[in-house]
Amino acid sequence: MTRDEITQAVLAARLERGLSWQDLADAIGKPVVWTVAALLGQHPLDTGDAEIVTGRLGLPRETIPVLASVPMRGALPTAVPTDPTIYRLYEVIQVYGPAIKEVIHEQFGDGIMSAINFGISIARRDHPAGDRVVITMDGKFLSYEWPS
Amino acid sequence: MTRDEITQAVLAARLERGLSWQDLADAIGKPVVWTVAALLGQHPLDTGDAEIVTGRLGLPRETIPVLASVPMRGALPTAVPTDPTIYRLYEVIQVYGPAIKEVIHEQFGDGIMSAINFGISIARRDHPAGDRVVITMDGKFLSYEWPS
Amino acid sequence: MTRDEITQAVLAARLERGLSWQDLADAIGKPVVWTVAALLGQHPLDTGDAEIVTGRLGLPRETIPVLASVPMRGALPTAVPTDPTIYRLYEVIQVYGPAIKEVIHEQFGDGIMSAINFGISIARRDHPAGDRVVITMDGKFLSYEWPS
Amino acid sequence: MTRDEITQAVLAARLERGLSWQDLADAIGKPVVWTVAALLGQHPLDTGDAEIVTGRLGLPRETIPVLASVPMRGALPTAVPTDPTIYRLYEVIQVYGPAIKEVIHEQFGDGIMSAINFGISIARRDHPAGDRVVITMDGKFLSYEWPS
Amino acid sequence: MTRDEITQAVLAARLERGLSWQDLADAIGKPVVWTVAALLGQHPLDTGDAEIVTGRLGLPRETIPVLASVPMRGALPTAVPTDPTIYRLYEVIQVYGPAIKEVIHEQFGDGIMSAINFGISIARRDHPAGDRVVITMDGKFLSYEWPS
Amino acid sequence: MTRDEITQAVLAARLERGLSWQDLADAIGKPVVWTVAALLGQHPLDTGDAEIVTGRLGLPRETIPVLASVPMRGALPTAVPTDPTIYRLYEVIQVYGPAIKEVIHEQFGDGIMSAINFGISIARRDHPAGDRVVITMDGKFLSYEWPS
Amino acid sequence: MTRDEITQAVLAARLERGLSWQDLADAIGKPVVWTVAALLGQHPLDTGDAEIVTGRLGLPRETIPVLASVPMRGALPTAVPTDPTIYRLYEVIQVYGPAIKEVIHEQFGDGIMSAINFGISIARRDHPAGDRVVITMDGKFLSYEWPS
Amino acid sequence: MTRDEITQAVLAARLERGLSWQDLADAIGKPVVWTVAALLGQHPLDTGDAEIVTGRLGLPRETIPVLASVPMRGALPTAVPTDPTIYRLYEVIQVYGPAIKEVIHEQFGDGIMSAINFGISIARRDHPAGDRVVITMDGKFLSYEWPS
Amino acid sequence: MTRDEITQAVLAARLERGLSWQDLADAIGKPVVWTVAALLGQHPLDTGDAEIVTGRLGLPRETIPVLASVPMRGALPTAVPTDPTIYRLYEVIQVYGPAIKEVIHEQFGDGIMSAINFGISIARRDHPAGDRVVITMDGKFLSYEWPS
Amino acid sequence: MTRDEITQAVLAARLERGLSWQDLADAIGKPVVWTVAALLGQHPLDTGDAEIVTGRLGLPRETIPVLASVPMRGALPTAVPTDPTIYRLYEVIQVYGPAIKEVIHEQFGDGIMSAINFGISIARRDHPAGDRVVITMDGKFLSYEWPS
Repeated sequence: MTRDEITQAVLAARLERGLSWQDLADAIGKPVVWTVAALLGQHPLDTGDAEIVTGRLGLPRETIPVLASVPMRGALPTAVPTDPTIYRLYEVIQVYGPAIKEVIHEQFGDGIMSAINFGISIARRDHPAGDRVVITMDGKFLSYEWPS
Repeated sequence: MTRDEITQAVLAARLERGLSWQDLADAIGKPVVWTVAALLGQHPLDTGDAEIVTGRLGLPRETIPVLASVPMRGALPTAVPTDPTIYRLYEVIQVYGPAIKEVIHEQFGDGIMSAINFGISIARRDHPAGDRVVITMDGKFLSYEWPS
Repeated sequence: MTRDEITQAVLAARLERGLSWQDLADAIGKPVVWTVAALLGQHPLDTGDAEIVTGRLGLPRETIPVLASVPMRGALPTAVPTDPTIYRLYEVIQVYGPAIKEVIHEQFGDGIMSAINFGISIARRDHPAGDRVVITMDGKFLSYEWPS
Repeated sequence: MTRDEITQAVLAARLERGLSWQDLADAIGKPVVWTVAALLGQHPLDTGDAEIVTGRLGLPRETIPVLASVPMRGALPTAVPTDPTIYRLYEVIQVYGPAIKEVIHEQFGDGIMSAINFGISIARRDHPAGDRVVITMDGKFLSYEWPS
Repeated sequence: MTRDEITQAVLAARLERGLSWQDLADAIGKPVVWTVAALLGQHPLDTGDAEIVTGRLGLPRETIPVLASVPMRGALPTAVPTDPTIYRLYEVIQVYGPAIKEVIHEQFGDGIMSAINFGISIARRDHPAGDRVVITMDGKFLSYEWPS
Repeated sequence: MTRDEITQAVLAARLERGLSWQDLADAIGKPVVWTVAALLGQHPLDTGDAEIVTGRLGLPRETIPVLASVPMRGALPTAVPTDPTIYRLYEVIQVYGPAIKEVIHEQFGDGIMSAINFGISIARRDHPAGDRVVITMDGKFLSYEWPS
Repeated sequence: MTRDEITQAVLAARLERGLSWQDLADAIGKPVVWTVAALLGQHPLDTGDAEIVTGRLGLPRETIPVLASVPMRGALPTAVPTDPTIYRLYEVIQVYGPAIKEVIHEQFGDGIMSAINFGISIARRDHPAGDRVVITMDGKFLSYEWPS
Repeated sequence: MTRDEITQAVLAARLERGLSWQDLADAIGKPVVWTVAALLGQHPLDTGDAEIVTGRLGLPRETIPVLASVPMRGALPTAVPTDPTIYRLYEVIQVYGPAIKEVIHEQFGDGIMSAINFGISIARRDHPAGDRVVITMDGKFLSYEWPS
Repeated sequence: MTRDEITQAVLAARLERGLSWQDLADAIGKPVVWTVAALLGQHPLDTGDAEIVTGRLGLPRETIPVLASVPMRGALPTAVPTDPTIYRLYEVIQVYGPAIKEVIHEQFGDGIMSAINFGISIARRDHPAGDRVVITMDGKFLSYEWPS
Repeated sequence: MTRDEITQAVLAARLERGLSWQDLADAIGKPVVWTVAALLGQHPLDTGDAEIVTGRLGLPRETIPVLASVPMRGALPTAVPTDPTIYRLYEVIQVYGPAIKEVIHEQFGDGIMSAINFGISIARRDHPAGDRVVITMDGKFLSYEWPS
């Protein structure tokens, strides 16, 4: 089975068995966003975690070494996402991207927020006018440094 | 002057006068990310704020009604951003976008995080292994609703 | 079966069994545009509705949890639609999009018509020079609001 | 002046003189969406109307024959619109386009809603949970017909 | 079978059985360009015609309702055609498209040649320097009309 | 002046002077579609014709050698045309392109309709249900031939 | 079998049987570049040649009418080729394309080198600093001619 | 003046002064295709040659060091060329590119025809059925070699 | 099996058998980057090496002639890579590409670093602030030379 | 002056004054690749260095704060570079990119070579068969780490 076929199988098995993503994350003791990303083919699982997850989902054992290998990353089928939930994140970059860049440079200097030494979490904020999604990205600042 | 020419003039005048973005945000009492986005042509300024800002930057008064009008939004010159600081945000969508979607659906139901009723802030988190950029997005959850 | 395979199966079964889209919409008591969109993979069905629909179409029961899950949305195979019936909608955006934007801003202020809290209906208007298609979009106005 | 330069001049003059689009539409007795589209370079104005409008906006008389000529249409700078207000219309096509197609075919037969014999209007619908934008498109149904 | 698979089957069966497109057009009494377009998935066939054609081609009866349904149109695999015979038509638009537009506007006014109320035929014109392909497009003129 | 600037100047001068394209074509005794294409930068004019045309339009004499030189052809600003009048021609290729190809091959053999040894004309066909645009393309058939 | 599947089968069978392209060209007495192009789906083979070739390659007889039919041409999977050997030809167009155009116009007048009445050959030129690939393209000059 | 502005100036001056490309090539004793490519911004001229050429064309002396510097190469404004004369070269790659690749590999081994150690010439071949353009490309064969 | 299927099979078999890329490179005595590139379909293997590798991986013998043939090169599924590890190399070209060009021209003259007579190696450099990846590219300088 | 205009001015002034890039790098005591990248708008210069450089190049003092600000990075005008010298670097990613990824993962684990904490140098390696360009990239390895 290729990585893509395994991702399809994960999606189908999870729905069929009625498992939540949180169930799978709890089973391996990892944050839920990380776990979903990994199962959608964006991160390798430890072999032990891959065994647990494939057990829960009823996937064949041959998928374990594939799930444990570093994947070819990139989850969007088109350069500009079409799904509205994902598109809003792209819209944020279109509207606020250069502003984020300017503020990072003003507060930290020349460099970037790492997307590798990086975590992301999603929380619910109660609000009388309607609850809110709060996404927190936490990445190490990396300054441009030329090696000596 | 077109909106694009005004944006170029803002960028040049800010550097020439040695003003920080924070200075300009403080002058109008608005959050800094919002202020930079507005000055880069992504949000309208109140006429009063436009007067203050053009005063600080030494821009001609004819720019005020333009700065106060709703702009044609979209700040990226290419669909996939080339600037590394901005690209990392795009990479986050490539790697975590579908996972964010799944977690929002699992925790909130079918819908999106609004990018309109929405704010974004940037903070510094001290860390012994290197300080971190923390970006917090806070958008109202909007569930799919068919009007009756 | 993946979502795409289910969509193909829905299309084939509907034709084979001679069911109209209206039949399927009536069976679940939902508006017809919404029903077609859902069956083409753009909205989740309630499990009960999915049971009814798969019964009518003779689809296997394993498709029910997939039809009931939130799909990855986006129905066009190309960024610019090639089908003439759909292209005319795109042409409307090319010709009237910026005008719609200006009028919304003039009448409502800075913001958007939601495509999430949103419904759409199609009606026939009799006309001596040839009947007319009337498409009504009804979306909540969302004004740009920065959370406090 | 080229058509694009005239469009830029219209935008600047309208803001500078504090005229609303509705003012300009009323001045020529045309629907407001049509008027804005025309002034943004998507429709020709009658010479008489062009004289009125250029008078209100203080544009040079040499712009009149250009405003009165049939323009090269197409108002979006990118194939997929980046402005959020306009993007929502594109998103509607991504999510509902094929469904609209199916319903038109089921109710009218094989053909299209014309975008030429076509009008569009925007109305406000009061709603206790927030007012709504109602966009009504009204186009002649054209059935596929092979000439004899 | 999906529409694409049926198109593939039509192409294979026609070659295998040694049928010309004209044979198939004659069998159903339709113009040959229309017939080929329909069999390549661009127009629906009447059920009766679909029965005749599938009989000649030896296709299974389950293809009949699919051939009789309105297809998702658009036959080119890339936005710019690569096949030289088809590319020349695209080149004609690149070289003469704006000129055709200007002449239509000068002779008919503001509007379009319909591609829906439209027919196309191909004829051979004998010529001493080499025979010529004459393609005649015949579409109803549609003037821009705003409904009242 | 570059070729593009001359094209802009032609368009502006024609409108300002109230000349029809037919007037200009008659002045040089050439078919009108050809004349418009040439003046829009798609064909070279004979020097004599360029003198006549620039005289009528009041263009500077330095434009004559440019108008008389072979241009870099290709008149569309985007690969898929956005103007509705021109788009319909593209739509014809999307819907009928492969069918035209098949019929040319069936009637002429393997080869193409030349777009170089080629003419195009536009005529009006009166029709009780609305007059029609008839576009006739007439190109030499070129069969694939491998030189010996 | 579709044309693409046949092309895959040709590639596999040739390698498995250890046949050179020259062997196949010699078997049918055609130039080698033409033969390879034909077998890669860019030209039809005569039925007799198709019989010979399928015999050598051990392909099923049902492939013969497909190989003998005019194919949908265009062999590159991407608009800009990625394979280095093929890319160099594209680079030649990027660097020399407009120069070739100017020289053809200066030496022949306004027109093109036909790619239909056209042949191409590849030869080896010995050279002390390393042998050279000499590609010769030979196409009929076609001048722009408007039919009368 | 930027390189692009110089290219525009070269084109205009050549036409105005009635110089052929061959005249300019003869003036510097270089092949004509090379000379045109260089003057269109694809190759540096020796300073001496740049002096001669700018003299003939009446360009300012400040253009000499720019003409003598290595340019940023790539002469096509779009990835797929729209000009018919240049497009035919692209079509040759679409139809014959993979065949050329196979024949080079069969005759020379794994490698490429260099586009750097490379020359190109254009000749006229008289032919009773119409003269022919013969383009000869002559590039060093470079085999894949891994350095030790 | 097509080349792509063989590449998939290599990837799956390597993981299943727990072989490192270095194991496979050692087995055939080739540099590891070259070996991985070859097994991912970018270089041909000698038949002897293909026998060794397919033996280690347990692939069928019919894959040997395919692995030994020159492949259609180009390993990226999208023009801009989405995988972060590979994207960083693209980012290097975006940020440093024109600078590399200028320095090569200043130090070597007009020409390129060959990607054919070329090798690449990866080494680890220990560093107290974190180990470093050192990628060394070594390509023959090729100066632009016009053959005589 | 915008950043782009300054880059154009740098290029023109350097050629006009006959300064090498090495001269400019030496003047500020920085590596030459870094210096060229900075002057082409990819890195900020220290204010002191900007003063030195603008002095050497004779640029106006108003360019200093722009040169000292963090630029919007990304130097390629097209996603796939057209210049042959730069294209070869892109070709290396097409041919070796996935192999580099695999080897980095095998030798370092899951992560990337940083393009921020990163340097690049170019050296000449003498070789009897022709000197070679050696490009060394040296970037910190960053392993995927989820913050706690």
